[in-house]
Amino acid sequence: MTDRNAGPDADFERTVRDLIDSKTKPLGALGQVEAVALQLARATGTVAPRLDSCELTIFAADHGIAAEGVSAYPQAVTREMVRNFLNRGAAANVFAAAVDASVRVVDAGVAGEPLDHPDLVRRRIGPGTGNFLAGPAMTGVQCDEALQAGRQLAEDSPADVLCFGEMGIGNTSAATLLAHKLLGLPVADLAGRGTGLDDAGLAHKTAILEAAAVRTAPDLSAAHALAEYGGFEIAMMTGAMLGAAQSNRPVLVDGFISTAAALVALGIEPVVRRTLIYAHRSAEHGHRTMLDALAARPILDLEMRLGEGTGALLAWPVVRAASAMLTDMASFESAGVSGPA
Amino acid sequence: MTDRNAGPDADFERTVRDLIDSKTKPLGALGQVEAVALQLARATGTVAPRLDSCELTIFAADHGIAAEGVSAYPQAVTREMVRNFLNRGAAANVFAAAVDASVRVVDAGVAGEPLDHPDLVRRRIGPGTGNFLAGPAMTGVQCDEALQAGRQLAEDSPADVLCFGEMGIGNTSAATLLAHKLLGLPVADLAGRGTGLDDAGLAHKTAILEAAAVRTAPDLSAAHALAEYGGFEIAMMTGAMLGAAQSNRPVLVDGFISTAAALVALGIEPVVRRTLIYAHRSAEHGHRTMLDALAARPILDLEMRLGEGTGALLAWPVVRAASAMLTDMASFESAGVSGPA
Repeated sequence: MTDRNAGPDADFERTVRDLIDSKTKPLGALGQVEAVALQLARATGTVAPRLDSCELTIFAADHGIAAEGVSAYPQAVTREMVRNFLNRGAAANVFAAAVDASVRVVDAGVAGEPLDHPDLVRRRIGPGTGNFLAGPAMTGVQCDEALQAGRQLAEDSPADVLCFGEMGIGNTSAATLLAHKLLGLPVADLAGRGTGLDDAGLAHKTAILEAAAVRTAPDLSAAHALAEYGGFEIAMMTGAMLGAAQSNRPVLVDGFISTAAALVALGIEPVVRRTLIYAHRSAEHGHRTMLDALAARPILDLEMRLGEGTGALLAWPVVRAASAMLTDMASFESAGVSGPA
Repeated sequence: MTDRNAGPDADFERTVRDLIDSKTKPLGALGQVEAVALQLARATGTVAPRLDSCELTIFAADHGIAAEGVSAYPQAVTREMVRNFLNRGAAANVFAAAVDASVRVVDAGVAGEPLDHPDLVRRRIGPGTGNFLAGPAMTGVQCDEALQAGRQLAEDSPADVLCFGEMGIGNTSAATLLAHKLLGLPVADLAGRGTGLDDAGLAHKTAILEAAAVRTAPDLSAAHALAEYGGFEIAMMTGAMLGAAQSNRPVLVDGFISTAAALVALGIEPVVRRTLIYAHRSAEHGHRTMLDALAARPILDLEMRLGEGTGALLAWPVVRAASAMLTDMASFESAGVSGPA
């Protein structure tokens, strides 16, 4: 990080910091909002980025591991929730409307026959992944295809800021193993109750995941871990994070599963760190561990654990306010306001 | 609180809780947003309140205590910032635009000649309060007048949700003494750096406030404390909180000074508790103490300490999302989504 202390990066940060300090408020009085503003400037490469629009893309897919009874809900819920998203009845829809964000729903690989709806973005890699207790969740070719589809979806978005959400019964299991392989932390420290497992359910899930973990070497590359344990929705979200970085667009990282996708993206292209903004701390056991490993301080801590991008959406107004501080707020000089006595 | 466990209140809460639990999400998965939704139902007396509009009213006034050098900024800043609000250049203005809230600016008693601007709401009680180190900040008549003006301003607002902010050099001193008198906690535990005092400045401020505190009895009524130590903007905000309660409208309580106004309002009419929603935890020393005394869990914790209603504004989208969850989100039944296996 020595390049932060000198050279063009340091000059840029100083310019942004000076701009923030020129605004009509006591030094540092906007706290974390000022820190977010600095992140937005870094992400966009612009001292005062104008960020007026936000889009949530929800990636949905099924997981072979669901056959092992690792979730409190049946696999059919993935498909049913996709319909709910398309009918604008889910939490993600009503939150998006409340914070002035648009929504796209992507079938990345929901089990059963392909879904049909005029608003559905169809990018199916297959009818759900394989059961990773027995073998790889997907082939390398499928993994690359999902990553590429995600990159393209990010590129196609007209929004200034991108939120990514997910739906997939079993996907906290996939996210747990990705975090385990990429952070080297014990499965038991990362596995949680997901949609609501009881103690016995959590013990069963943890045992299944520990058995699946020893099937592969401990030092997998990020892309290899993604193919072994990921889901089509996680792989596509990873690709979308890579695509957003390419176009210098901030990504609001949602909860446990989205942060696992971020870990994979960071493993593939470390430069993606510049555009990732951690939106909230999920109540899902293990998310705090992941955020700590990333030295990330999320914007919100509302004990939410729903996914779908709901946490990212609620952070959007704070992000928008932070960018508006940079672009629209008066300086002491322009407003004719006196400084400290 | 025994009436919460039986009778109409308990029935109402059970109905709201059942509605929340019927929504398409795992039980409790929206965490604090569910708690906020329950507060909104209680505040409005409606199981599923539709809350689409929000207005910030900024009350500005000057404080005689500023003559004692208790602030890092000169008194002229109050007046200069009122012009900044009217020109839409302050943090409160740009945050309001970012979260889709409207703004009113009220001259409750800024020092000097009356300000003139077509958008300014003129409710001047006087050209700033008296110096409360020497005697009461205002007369009982002035205090009543300010309370009544605030009630009326709340009544006049067309918005579903009300935010109140303030501007007044010296007003953390006023708020500190109100909290001291109403909570019975030591001045030194409540006094903070305000707009940015250094250690010597804070020691001086604390000594001045301790001297002012012993001028009156320790057991003042809320209204009496308000006249002795309050500001015209704090008294008017207190009245507005009382007025909002009368029309069952939720109030998003901002930071240190707004919470002091809430303490006074609660002292005058305890029923106001039902409509107060604590928006954020300020970084101003003493706000945590006040929130703990109120057993309040604020929505945001962004280390902000600006006032103006900026913290209340950033909580509005979360409040809007919570109400939209109640009104617009599908149930398992209506969406045809399966429950736990």
